[in-house]
Amino acid sequence: MTIHPAPTDAAPAEAFKAGMALLAGAVTIVATDGPGGRAGFTATAVCSVTADPPTLLVCVNAGSSAAPAFAANDQVTVNVLTPDQAAVAQAFGGKTPMAARFGAGWVPGSSGAPVLEGSLVVFETRVVERKRMGTHDVMFCRVCAVHVSSATPQAAVWWNRAMRTLA
Amino acid sequence: MTIHPAPTDAAPAEAFKAGMALLAGAVTIVATDGPGGRAGFTATAVCSVTADPPTLLVCVNAGSSAAPAFAANDQVTVNVLTPDQAAVAQAFGGKTPMAARFGAGWVPGSSGAPVLEGSLVVFETRVVERKRMGTHDVMFCRVCAVHVSSATPQAAVWWNRAMRTLA
Repeated sequence: MTIHPAPTDAAPAEAFKAGMALLAGAVTIVATDGPGGRAGFTATAVCSVTADPPTLLVCVNAGSSAAPAFAANDQVTVNVLTPDQAAVAQAFGGKTPMAARFGAGWVPGSSGAPVLEGSLVVFETRVVERKRMGTHDVMFCRVCAVHVSSATPQAAVWWNRAMRTLA
Repeated sequence: MTIHPAPTDAAPAEAFKAGMALLAGAVTIVATDGPGGRAGFTATAVCSVTADPPTLLVCVNAGSSAAPAFAANDQVTVNVLTPDQAAVAQAFGGKTPMAARFGAGWVPGSSGAPVLEGSLVVFETRVVERKRMGTHDVMFCRVCAVHVSSATPQAAVWWNRAMRTLA
């Protein structure tokens, strides 16, 4: 094993990122609409918190172009992607202007936040709490509705700096 | 798509769990040792929060047998498993008594918390904050050291109620 010791209290950011590149994560698009405008970004930092009440969390870079909308809006969707939707992950992960990200397939969910048709799963949520940690805000999201695809499940996963398929 | 509407403010726990089963997650063992004793559990609810300072989070069921040790100890490791370590995930995920979980391959890390040799990645951390959310505690963990395996990377992923391999 390559050991990166801790000369100070914290590991170097580079070692942290190299390690995190090997932590597999589902590829999702986190989206919002409301008074702060429509926005979305590709995220793998999404996880379940508790089923009672149903709650998940999402980490958002507070310096990103999407951040102001997520700070202003409480209605947020988490769209879990299939391998067929890889191009959407690309559009929402780069420098594409926000207005150009939302192409075909997006419809308003019951809360008004955007839902991507054909997703493996969509969670419609309401942000109940936000917590700043370093460069990121952690959004705790109460899940109001869940849409599960009726197709044979396939998932897009980000691991070792590339997109992978689970089927 | 099967739509589970929200008659109240929250989706039914069953719909939430069915959706979450399709959110892929890396299989990890989260472990601790210290004044509260040695403990560990299998977790997929682990994600990166910020690289500055390097921080990840872990959700722990506050009602689990491992929870008291994690409430008392600040030294925590996150051991990201390879497919070869599936039996370890089994041992730490069920009703196995805590003392019987730690078999061969566990060594004390630099902080004293247990490190599983042969893991894909090990993050040695110190809990800097805990936050209760429903049935779970979210532990925010400052990463002090990162160990990356020098073997060809392979990852164990939990998805659609089964273990999968990424390579």
